[in-house]
Amino acid sequence: MNLGKHKGKLYVVSGPSGAGKGTICKELLKDSDLQLSISMTTRAPREGEVEGVHYYFVSHADFEEIVEKDGFLEHASIYENRYGTPKAPVMEKLEKGIDVILEIEMQGALQIKENYPDGVFIFILPPSMAELRKRLTGRGTETAEAIEMRLSSTLKELSYIEKYDYCVVNGELEEAVNRIKAILVAEHSKVTMTAKELIEKYSEEE
Amino acid sequence: MNLGKHKGKLYVVSGPSGAGKGTICKELLKDSDLQLSISMTTRAPREGEVEGVHYYFVSHADFEEIVEKDGFLEHASIYENRYGTPKAPVMEKLEKGIDVILEIEMQGALQIKENYPDGVFIFILPPSMAELRKRLTGRGTETAEAIEMRLSSTLKELSYIEKYDYCVVNGELEEAVNRIKAILVAEHSKVTMTAKELIEKYSEEE
Repeated sequence: MNLGKHKGKLYVVSGPSGAGKGTICKELLKDSDLQLSISMTTRAPREGEVEGVHYYFVSHADFEEIVEKDGFLEHASIYENRYGTPKAPVMEKLEKGIDVILEIEMQGALQIKENYPDGVFIFILPPSMAELRKRLTGRGTETAEAIEMRLSSTLKELSYIEKYDYCVVNGELEEAVNRIKAILVAEHSKVTMTAKELIEKYSEEE
Repeated sequence: MNLGKHKGKLYVVSGPSGAGKGTICKELLKDSDLQLSISMTTRAPREGEVEGVHYYFVSHADFEEIVEKDGFLEHASIYENRYGTPKAPVMEKLEKGIDVILEIEMQGALQIKENYPDGVFIFILPPSMAELRKRLTGRGTETAEAIEMRLSSTLKELSYIEKYDYCVVNGELEEAVNRIKAILVAEHSKVTMTAKELIEKYSEEE
């Protein structure tokens, strides 16, 4: 039996850099009906990047037009390029009943929260600051100084926790992924139908 | 890492008679840290019934005293006997961080909702009215007329759906139980700590 409205849910997975949100999302996408939200960017495609798979590639003018039409769930500039999450493809999927997952840094997540408060906001936390330092160092992409700066900004980012619905500590990947899968199931068990709809549903068959 | 306050949660499992809430609760209690809430009654113990396991057995005078002290989460009279859920044992468990599960018919659930709105209210639905009729008939404990009356009151009971947090259709028992287990996990992943608490937690270890 179909219960309730079949609108999809938007899951926004966010958290400090190094918490592991990217790896978690990859795992979640493996065996589920979730679809990943695709960002739009003004930067040129790199080799192997496919339009509509890795990004939607657009000109600066086109990007600006969408900004002016309030067509982004969030957007930001990084150096001379712009990045954003276009509303339309996400909304189309949600209307069709498809769940969408969106991985994003915390400033972006807060913008989405303003534009689409019905989203389910999941905060991924590292098990400890020591572990986070270890992960960031292990990447070998940043200087020790840059890592320390990142760690102190992480502590500040924790102050946004109250904007989120759920909080998952990513100590052991599989456990964190299972916890989020449980959240997806629970979210779909939430009461969304009205009493009238439910009574009609059960009366019909009689 | 311990995140947030470690108060237990009260899960109130309710729904129409025949939806299978009793069977579901038994399954949930099998392999979990949940504890079942025990009712208090003025009726005499039946053979094999153990005080504090099946019921708390009390006199009418003692029951009334607890009612007057507002010591029940819910209570009701059935014929000449009284039944209720005493607050104190539930609250003690919750304070200790123990999750409590409480199986109850719908009028009782609504009383609990008034007395303890922090509870998590789960509505168990039969897959269809036809299946519900089949289950009630299968029990062989009621006349066809009594069953029809029960079915029509079930339709009315559905109107309380909006008072509940979650709704689980019990078509296949294992699936319904797994869905509720997911709800328990998700509930424990909800953000309950404040930003201040979280920042302190992560700063401490540095």
